Amino acid sequence: MKEKNSVGIVKSKNFICKNPLKLDSGVLLNEFELTYETYGKLNAKHDNAVLVCHALSGNHHLAGRYSSSDKYPGWWDSLIGPNKPLDTNKFFVIGVNNLGGSHGSTGPKSINPKTKKPWGSTFPIITIQDWINSQNELINHLGISKLSGVLGGSLGGMQAVQWSIQYPEKVKNAIVIAAAPNLTAQNIAFNEVARQAIVTDTSFNKGDYYKLGVTPKMGLRIARMLGHITYLSDDVMGQKFGRKIKNTEYQYNLDTEFEIESYLNYQGDKFANEFDANTYIRMTKALDYFDPTNGNKRKLSSVFKEIQSEFLIISFTSDWRFSPKRSKEIVKALLDNNIKVSYAEITATSGHDAFLMSDDRYHNILRSYFKRMLGVK
Amino acid sequence: MKEKNSVGIVKSKNFICKNPLKLDSGVLLNEFELTYETYGKLNAKHDNAVLVCHALSGNHHLAGRYSSSDKYPGWWDSLIGPNKPLDTNKFFVIGVNNLGGSHGSTGPKSINPKTKKPWGSTFPIITIQDWINSQNELINHLGISKLSGVLGGSLGGMQAVQWSIQYPEKVKNAIVIAAAPNLTAQNIAFNEVARQAIVTDTSFNKGDYYKLGVTPKMGLRIARMLGHITYLSDDVMGQKFGRKIKNTEYQYNLDTEFEIESYLNYQGDKFANEFDANTYIRMTKALDYFDPTNGNKRKLSSVFKEIQSEFLIISFTSDWRFSPKRSKEIVKALLDNNIKVSYAEITATSGHDAFLMSDDRYHNILRSYFKRMLGVK
Repeated sequence: MKEKNSVGIVKSKNFICKNPLKLDSGVLLNEFELTYETYGKLNAKHDNAVLVCHALSGNHHLAGRYSSSDKYPGWWDSLIGPNKPLDTNKFFVIGVNNLGGSHGSTGPKSINPKTKKPWGSTFPIITIQDWINSQNELINHLGISKLSGVLGGSLGGMQAVQWSIQYPEKVKNAIVIAAAPNLTAQNIAFNEVARQAIVTDTSFNKGDYYKLGVTPKMGLRIARMLGHITYLSDDVMGQKFGRKIKNTEYQYNLDTEFEIESYLNYQGDKFANEFDANTYIRMTKALDYFDPTNGNKRKLSSVFKEIQSEFLIISFTSDWRFSPKRSKEIVKALLDNNIKVSYAEITATSGHDAFLMSDDRYHNILRSYFKRMLGVK
Repeated sequence: MKEKNSVGIVKSKNFICKNPLKLDSGVLLNEFELTYETYGKLNAKHDNAVLVCHALSGNHHLAGRYSSSDKYPGWWDSLIGPNKPLDTNKFFVIGVNNLGGSHGSTGPKSINPKTKKPWGSTFPIITIQDWINSQNELINHLGISKLSGVLGGSLGGMQAVQWSIQYPEKVKNAIVIAAAPNLTAQNIAFNEVARQAIVTDTSFNKGDYYKLGVTPKMGLRIARMLGHITYLSDDVMGQKFGRKIKNTEYQYNLDTEFEIESYLNYQGDKFANEFDANTYIRMTKALDYFDPTNGNKRKLSSVFKEIQSEFLIISFTSDWRFSPKRSKEIVKALLDNNIKVSYAEITATSGHDAFLMSDDRYHNILRSYFKRMLGVK
């Protein structure tokens, strides 16, 4: 049976870029590879492309399934497909695994061509600016000189902002969801605890664990458990789990007593079996470093001066990781520059995770905005 | 030079209780030891005693110093001393290290008299109810049949609440600061991440690490770093640390870049060198289990029916660990029973940690309440 409004069976592609890439860290990558997927067709004018940037633990697999027996579709399947809010009958949608990732693109577990061994600890720190430059190479390769839109949630939203700053002439619309203009001290603090859990795992071996046949799973699962707390609101955790216990009464031992504990342990274990710890560290570092104001050396509104894109900014009321207040800082700095911006603050209980959900009000706003991008009433 | 309003040089005492203690877990402790300190003098009527209960990482050393060269005074020295808000010229103040602690009282690192080895993994889970029963033995030993007050912040505040429920005839006043009637799912979640960091540390050895000459420091430091995030508000972290970096520019490596990272790592290391991991686990478990409604089987106002104490409840606006909303749940349930309760919500930026600070408005409220307890205008 055919899945309704699905992009169907999809296949990842690889783009090998032979243009050297100078990273913010000073490191020069002589070549790199990006794994990506596309959905829909690039039109004759090449002006219907939407690049979707992923967040911390995301990847290029946005929609569809790899086979008919594939259990889960891509992570933003609810949004992307024929007749879905981001309509693949109209748009050419691109998902890309970021540089430093662990889903096919050049990253710490890739083989360093110079040494013929995994990069491991020697893989450089990557910034959002680096990602935009590498994604730009992919866009060029696909024959796109101007993107109809760059879309992303959370860390993905930061990339949409940075695209509009870094390549102002190449972004018609930036759609920035549940994001912030930079991390607060508290945001950085959570990232640092996660990183410390990984680097102090005895299996981490300073990042060179591949050759030892081990992975710092214990650290990575702690990082993921902690992440999950910040993705959910206190309220939604209360509604879903509250103080529900696993057994009919307390066991008074060190096992998990409460359902919330089981949930977190399950999520941590699952993630630690799938994700690469070196990548996780680099994704959190990219978040920490992101700051278009460069430590307040310039005001955000001054940084936004050259922007040519129009913006849609969406935030969620219960998101305490990147609260509406932070989104509004972006809105304010755009308005300071007379940049066209639509802002929606969605009442939602799910916290930061709301950006991945398919709430009607939220998806309808995106649908309308994408329609407007096409000039369709 | 004599320190102003200090209780001066103090000494811990030990109380060995030979009365068996039946714990909530079903375990029977044939005897146990409590380490405690007292300040001021018990009056002739024995009616001026205030028991101060400690929080997660606290202990019995509330005020004064152990020697003139002692670098830091007790943890609540700002509050307790002659002419201080809790005036030791008037009150007999008792600090006690809780059962299961690592500061002298019987706990996981103590020698189990049966085996002549450290309890380690075999040390039972302790509940707040167990603590109250053990503290009651100490009070009896000191010749006090009724406490003028039980005072505590955070987990200490929960003990003050439980005292008034468990021994209604023995508590004249309960002073409950920055506490909650139970933990939310989010609170439990943070505790579980902390515990998992400890138990998955390869040095933990299921809790029997003493004999191996190692301690799960890496896990404990993660737990403490995480704890610190929840003790501070997002705002105060922003004010203190913001995005300040350690060097003049980004280093683009895995070292700590931001001052908030250094702060957390420092706090984590310090704590991991001082505190016992088995105790930390049991303190968080005691927090998780605390729930006078027993999983909502009874309403809080019904649980409070037999209470004879008067109450002072204090909360802090920026406390997101135990927010004012949670304190007001206690106030509401007290009012439902016509119990005398004073409630103060202090505007504070410091988050949960505000209860340890010496903000004037906060300390003046405590000073006034303690004066009222003595019948002094």
